[in-house]
Amino acid sequence: MLLPKHLVGLKDLNRQQIEFVLDVAQGMEPIAQGWQRSDLLKGTILATLFFEPSTRTRLSFETAMLRLGGGVISVADALRTSSAWKGESLADTIRTVDSYADIIAIRHATSGAAGEAASHSRVPVLNAGDGTNEHPTQGLLDLLTIRRALGRLDGLSVVMVGDLKHTRSINSLAYGLSNFDVRVTFVSPKGFEPAQPILDRMAERERSCRVTTDLREAVRDAEVIYVCRIQKERLEHAEDAERLKGSYLVDMALLRDARREPIVMHHLPRVGELAEDVDTYPGACYFKQPWNGVLTRMALLAILLGRVLR
Amino acid sequence: MLLPKHLVGLKDLNRQQIEFVLDVAQGMEPIAQGWQRSDLLKGTILATLFFEPSTRTRLSFETAMLRLGGGVISVADALRTSSAWKGESLADTIRTVDSYADIIAIRHATSGAAGEAASHSRVPVLNAGDGTNEHPTQGLLDLLTIRRALGRLDGLSVVMVGDLKHTRSINSLAYGLSNFDVRVTFVSPKGFEPAQPILDRMAERERSCRVTTDLREAVRDAEVIYVCRIQKERLEHAEDAERLKGSYLVDMALLRDARREPIVMHHLPRVGELAEDVDTYPGACYFKQPWNGVLTRMALLAILLGRVLR
Amino acid sequence: MLLPKHLVGLKDLNRQQIEFVLDVAQGMEPIAQGWQRSDLLKGTILATLFFEPSTRTRLSFETAMLRLGGGVISVADALRTSSAWKGESLADTIRTVDSYADIIAIRHATSGAAGEAASHSRVPVLNAGDGTNEHPTQGLLDLLTIRRALGRLDGLSVVMVGDLKHTRSINSLAYGLSNFDVRVTFVSPKGFEPAQPILDRMAERERSCRVTTDLREAVRDAEVIYVCRIQKERLEHAEDAERLKGSYLVDMALLRDARREPIVMHHLPRVGELAEDVDTYPGACYFKQPWNGVLTRMALLAILLGRVLR
Repeated sequence: MLLPKHLVGLKDLNRQQIEFVLDVAQGMEPIAQGWQRSDLLKGTILATLFFEPSTRTRLSFETAMLRLGGGVISVADALRTSSAWKGESLADTIRTVDSYADIIAIRHATSGAAGEAASHSRVPVLNAGDGTNEHPTQGLLDLLTIRRALGRLDGLSVVMVGDLKHTRSINSLAYGLSNFDVRVTFVSPKGFEPAQPILDRMAERERSCRVTTDLREAVRDAEVIYVCRIQKERLEHAEDAERLKGSYLVDMALLRDARREPIVMHHLPRVGELAEDVDTYPGACYFKQPWNGVLTRMALLAILLGRVLR
Repeated sequence: MLLPKHLVGLKDLNRQQIEFVLDVAQGMEPIAQGWQRSDLLKGTILATLFFEPSTRTRLSFETAMLRLGGGVISVADALRTSSAWKGESLADTIRTVDSYADIIAIRHATSGAAGEAASHSRVPVLNAGDGTNEHPTQGLLDLLTIRRALGRLDGLSVVMVGDLKHTRSINSLAYGLSNFDVRVTFVSPKGFEPAQPILDRMAERERSCRVTTDLREAVRDAEVIYVCRIQKERLEHAEDAERLKGSYLVDMALLRDARREPIVMHHLPRVGELAEDVDTYPGACYFKQPWNGVLTRMALLAILLGRVLR
Repeated sequence: MLLPKHLVGLKDLNRQQIEFVLDVAQGMEPIAQGWQRSDLLKGTILATLFFEPSTRTRLSFETAMLRLGGGVISVADALRTSSAWKGESLADTIRTVDSYADIIAIRHATSGAAGEAASHSRVPVLNAGDGTNEHPTQGLLDLLTIRRALGRLDGLSVVMVGDLKHTRSINSLAYGLSNFDVRVTFVSPKGFEPAQPILDRMAERERSCRVTTDLREAVRDAEVIYVCRIQKERLEHAEDAERLKGSYLVDMALLRDARREPIVMHHLPRVGELAEDVDTYPGACYFKQPWNGVLTRMALLAILLGRVLR
């Protein structure tokens, strides 16, 4: 099989592997739309193990499994509803759940937890977000969204703005994009720059990469603008919040300065950093991302369960 | 299609539409009983979004979907298990979930939330209870229960007793009944009378309608007695609770004064206002309501998903 | 049918009934492995009602149902997510849920709750653990694990160690084993001995049965070692914890004194009483128990739903 057994991160996927996933995902469209029925994964079971609650991602995985005819067992809030698991090692939990499910999607507050789970699991493990490390299915759906909107991943100018230090989706997207011929501009307040390994990767792959605090200037040449939240509780001085709010707000006033009709993306939920007046902007893609998320997860489930040949 | 795209309330359904739903519901009996298998909704997905927990209603919707071969994604307690959603607008949540599900059942603590959800959703929205506004699927299952028990909805004398002001099921049932030739007696302590729009509707439709505090007298001619809770925390004076307890208790002693063998209904759970000695009374219908609830929701899912023609 | 309608405990199952369940369970292997597809329970619904959270057991039941093509409705944390149910009698809850599901698996903090649920239910009830009473599906899966590992249940020397007083799985396993020709040694700190009815049963059936505090000696002749937790909060003196930790730890050092290559079992999760160095010991069976749990619950669902003839 082209992909590794588990999907722990995009750090180690190459261009060919990514394009394969996106191709399979795009082929899932008729099934997701309901134009075509599928029992491709009938008889298989997905376990969603969420040690950190995230309704959005959990529902997306479960939808993907159901669309392909599979079944789902679910722990929506492992730490709260499972007192027993509090004292259990992750290894023991996984060695139990892999007796139930054919594939496991795990979310965990600890960076590296997905990799650890994978190392103990007899069945494929999908990382649904681990600490500030990676969120690879989000990264792949973001790549799919860009490719569907703009027709390609090469030759693009991508701006990412917000808290780039603590947003695991950004890590996965950046690792994914590093396989393509892109120019990336990271826009964030001081102290919220991307982690060094991300910048190192861009350098290694010789991608054009800039870090700046000036959103307005960065947007001017952007073809893709990816907006993230800045979490107030992470700012040192409370008064910074108000000041930043204005500087890092993506709204139509800002977009009118953009010269290349950029698409606008957001991993959602948004809480103020992306104005509602953008919702009717033709390039607004953030409500297409959830749809592409289902396609991407359908593809990953089918591939890792060995039901897509290549 | 005969019904609107969404089911937000019974306020705007007419007699023909209600009878259509009840007819389809009754036709679901063999499937619900397991005498007949159905894959009518195979390949479709229901999302149950409960911002206010209610296991009873949620399980009923999910059962209905599974009985027809469909799949379910579920948020049992949206506010507690979904920290992310706390700050997100309902509009954004719906615009995400409508990428996952083909139909959404939503419960929310805010009156009007179901209507707002519907206005943002590409897929049909079913109101599973919004604040003190409506609970239309409960209203329809109540109508089905009456029609199955008594053979008709016209010409009946209906007593509703308890906290009629804060019980959304009562609103939906009253709006539904206003389409039929009924005589309604509302029995409640002072301050717990039905909301004015309910009384106005009865007047508009020229239905016989009385508001009283005297349960004993009202029961005498009743053919249907619908019991609701009176929540103690809503009483101004704690000592009222004890006094009311006796005055608004439905038990066999009370029913012996009834001259027309009324059926007895309750939306459940009961917590003291309906005595257990009524459980073996032949007219006790409150454990038939959950069954009829499944039939009703099967009908609504099938109709709103366009799988029942008319 | 050979089995009673409900499975409330192993106390009242005889040898023939137990062997029947284990035989059916073993026959489920090809379906659980995915070598063979089954729609044996298609169109039926299992309700998992967990008034006490237990992700492990809940997921096992749900997996079993899905593997046989059935559907699941689930309450993962009935007391927390269902405010309404707090005030409702268990009888009323069951009389509602039996309108939704074809079979109910219930877990409850109160001993006897499963029996009470069964007495009010139109559909079969499976006890998934009630207070300190019984956990019969665990008992059966434990018996299956022993039988698969050692080829028989008769003639075995079984050691159970830990808090034998408060562990309901031990009660069920002991009742089950009492039907076979076994020698049982109960090893526990003072005050944590098995409940008297368990010892009485062993005497009644004339099984060799010993209660001791000396683990090392007991292990010497064991063929099965079943390890349970000792919960610190149940100890009278905090300092006991440390002392006991050493005396009741099962590790390779202890196992090296055993003369008959005993298998080692644990109901999981473990929190210190079973060392990780045992994980690679050939007789370690505790990660096979979850797998056998799925088989056992598949068998029970199929039998109680009347889909297995005999």
